This record gives sequence, structure tokens and C-alpha cells, in this order.
Amino acid sequence: MYIETSKRSLIKGVSWRFVATTTTIIIVYVFFGRLDLAIAAGVLETFAKIFLYFFHERIWQRIKFGRQRIDPFNLWFTGLPLSGKTTLADAVFSELKKSDIPLERIDSKDIRDVIPNVGFEREERHRHLTRVGHLIKTLQNNSVSSIASFVSPYKESRQVINDMTNNYVEVYVKTSLETCKQRDYKGVYQKALSGELKNFTGISDVYDNPESPHIIIDTDTQSIEQATATIVQFVKKHYMP
Amino acid sequence: MYIETSKRSLIKGVSWRFVATTTTIIIVYVFFGRLDLAIAAGVLETFAKIFLYFFHERIWQRIKFGRQRIDPFNLWFTGLPLSGKTTLADAVFSELKKSDIPLERIDSKDIRDVIPNVGFEREERHRHLTRVGHLIKTLQNNSVSSIASFVSPYKESRQVINDMTNNYVEVYVKTSLETCKQRDYKGVYQKALSGELKNFTGISDVYDNPESPHIIIDTDTQSIEQATATIVQFVKKHYMP
Repeated sequence: MYIETSKRSLIKGVSWRFVATTTTIIIVYVFFGRLDLAIAAGVLETFAKIFLYFFHERIWQRIKFGRQRIDPFNLWFTGLPLSGKTTLADAVFSELKKSDIPLERIDSKDIRDVIPNVGFEREERHRHLTRVGHLIKTLQNNSVSSIASFVSPYKESRQVINDMTNNYVEVYVKTSLETCKQRDYKGVYQKALSGELKNFTGISDVYDNPESPHIIIDTDTQSIEQATATIVQFVKKHYMP
Repeated sequence: MYIETSKRSLIKGVSWRFVATTTTIIIVYVFFGRLDLAIAAGVLETFAKIFLYFFHERIWQRIKFGRQRIDPFNLWFTGLPLSGKTTLADAVFSELKKSDIPLERIDSKDIRDVIPNVGFEREERHRHLTRVGHLIKTLQNNSVSSIASFVSPYKESRQVINDMTNNYVEVYVKTSLETCKQRDYKGVYQKALSGELKNFTGISDVYDNPESPHIIIDTDTQSIEQATATIVQFVKKHYMP
């Protein structure tokens, strides 16, 4: 985010006044053929408009019409491991970032990299997500929207996120367990099946299917482009004026 | 944060053009006494200036002079329990918030309320502060500065915060242990001395004195008003253009 220094505003204002008044002088001269009077009119105009512009701005500051408070959203991707949450969330982020709104991308992996050794037991997962909820809430206090991708397998964790944040939009990335297993490029499903990874969602831990997500994406039948377009359209329609 | 809708910008633009051109017409009429020509000049001016204003804006968008990226700071209060960190940080926050910069207040207590049962053992404290560092970093990514107050007793935790965040300003609230004990309105020092509270900084856990804080506040000799003024002045001088 940028701010404009007072110096820049001042110089820009003087620059515009120069352009505007020169135009007036030329027009008046063309119409009346008297350069001296045209210049006198220009000088008078300069002073008059500096004051008028000031009052015009002050009056408009009191007019509420057309001023909208930025109303940040929290786009939340949930789904099985390797269901495609991160890929999809990244694509949606790139697309929405073009609109130049304050927006933060939050991914499970990035957070777990910062704070290692967070467990995958039910209670630990829930605490972890409550922290993420607090992070998103703090961002929202400062007008920043978020795009978050977390397995978030438990209904109660998603409910907490919903309660903590405004404009919670749940995207259920509904990829079948079979497809996720086939995609197993990280070898994590293999490790979960062999018992090397404990509490693995879909294998040795539950995934509560979302009951009323705002958007359902079936990656077995929809392309990333289609899915991205659907989600972007939803967010733009509901949360971007 | 607010945004201006296109409708508001358009109506405001037309409103100013009306005021500006009416002024021109009046001036020209006063100088030359020909209302018909004055109106014709006004009409010509209206069209000319709509285009000129557009190009003037486009040219200024390419001029970098006077555009400053907001460079968020992280004002970090450290000190013994009841040293006065929260009171002082709150006062500084109220003062700096007047400048209308994006600013978030983060207090140890608020964070511990959201995520209860965070321990006070050395490792737990350190992980807790690393999370806070991540929160501040994420805010900074979005141009938001922060005012944080945490006992943060260990040198290594403060170092991590320093490394994770930009423009780290350390305020050491240097209140003597005796004064803190006397202030014991929460009865926490009493509980720590009796052994009811474990790992209590200053009693049963270490406080590493900051080695090179940016600001030292001695609440035994300085009033809150004096201390607030000192800190606000420092921040304004270094981080607010």
C-alpha cells in the first residue's frame, strides 16, 4: 500500500491549476481577442478555484453516498489431503489479487512450517485451527480478506472458524478418496495405510463432510479453470462491489 | 478502510465541473459583459478540461515522486509482569491511531484468551511468541503496523520476533521488581511467591534484561504521559512520513 506525501499532493495541485487556468486564458483570448483581460480573468480564476475546490472537498467529506466500508471475506477451502485445495486456492488467489483488494493467502503447510511439531490429534488440530481463525479475524479487523486452505476435517473446527470470522465462504473440495489415493505423489496415503503416519484424515481419522458448503467443487469432473471461475464469480458477486 | 464507488466518483466529478465552469462563466461575464460568449466559453472549457484532467491524472500516475510505500513497524513492549507494558502500549496506541495509519494492538492477555492453556514453560512461551511473530509478519505483509505487549522474558524469543518482523522497535519497560511487587493488584506476585503460580517471570523464572532496546522507560521516575510522548515521538520520527 502506498501513501501520497504532502509535497506530491501540493505539486500535483499546482500543476493542475497551471494546466486548467492556461486553458481558460486561451479560450477567453480566442473568444474576445483581449490578452490582457484574458490573463486578468485567469488570475482571478486561480484564486477563486483554490478556495472553491477546498470547500467542494469539505462538503463531499460529509456526504456518505457511495462510500463503502471494505467488507473482508474469508474463503475457506476444506477437503481430504491431496484433494486439490492448495492448487485451487492458489489459482483463485492469483485471479482475485488482480482486483487489487487487500488479500492474504494462508495455507496449512506454510503455518505448520512456521510452528513445527503441531500434532494431528483431534484436540491439537482444533487448537491449531482456532489460532488460524484468530489470525484471519485480526486481518479482517484491518480490512484484509483471506483465502485459506486447510484439511479442517472436523465440523466443530469449521464452525469455530465460521463464528470467529466475517463473511465465511466454505468451499468443499469434494474429491473422492480413490482419486486422492491415486494422486498420492507425496506418498502420504501409502504411509498412512502402512501405519507410518498416524491420525491421517480419510484413512485413520474422520473427515466430517460439510453439510451446507457455499460451493462444492468436484475435481473428478471439473477442471481447475472451471472451478476457479465458479469460485471467483461467487466471491465477486457477493463480496466485491 | 473505505473504498469509493464509481458512482460517487462520477457524481463528485460532475459536481466539481459544474462549480468550476459556473465560476469561469461568471468571471468572463464580469470582464466582458457578454453572457452568450461567456456561456460558449464555459461549454468549450467543460469539454477541454474533462480531457485535460484525464491526461493530467495519467501522466501523474507515471511520476514516482512523493509516492511512499507504507513501511509498517512493530513496536514491542517487554518487561516484568505488572511493569506497566499494557497501560503504556494502550496509551501509545490511542495516540498513534489518531494518525489514521493501519495499526493493530496485540496484547498477551487477548491472545491467551483466544487460545487458553498455553503453558508458561520455556519452550511453550517461545513457541507462543513465534506464533505472535507470524501474526505480526502477516499483518505487515498487508501494510499493517502493530503495537505488542508481552513479558517476552527470553532473549532468544525477542531475537526471533526481531528476525521475523520489519522495523522492530524494542521498548524495555524497566520497572524494578520491588515496584512490580508493590503494584500487585492482581495478587499474582503473591501467588508466585507462595509457589501457587509456577514459572513466574521475576520470581521463579528468568527475565533476560534487553541488551540494546531502542527505548527504555523507567516507570519509577517517568509518568505515563512523559513515556507515551517519548515513544510516540520516536515512532513518528522514524516510521511515519
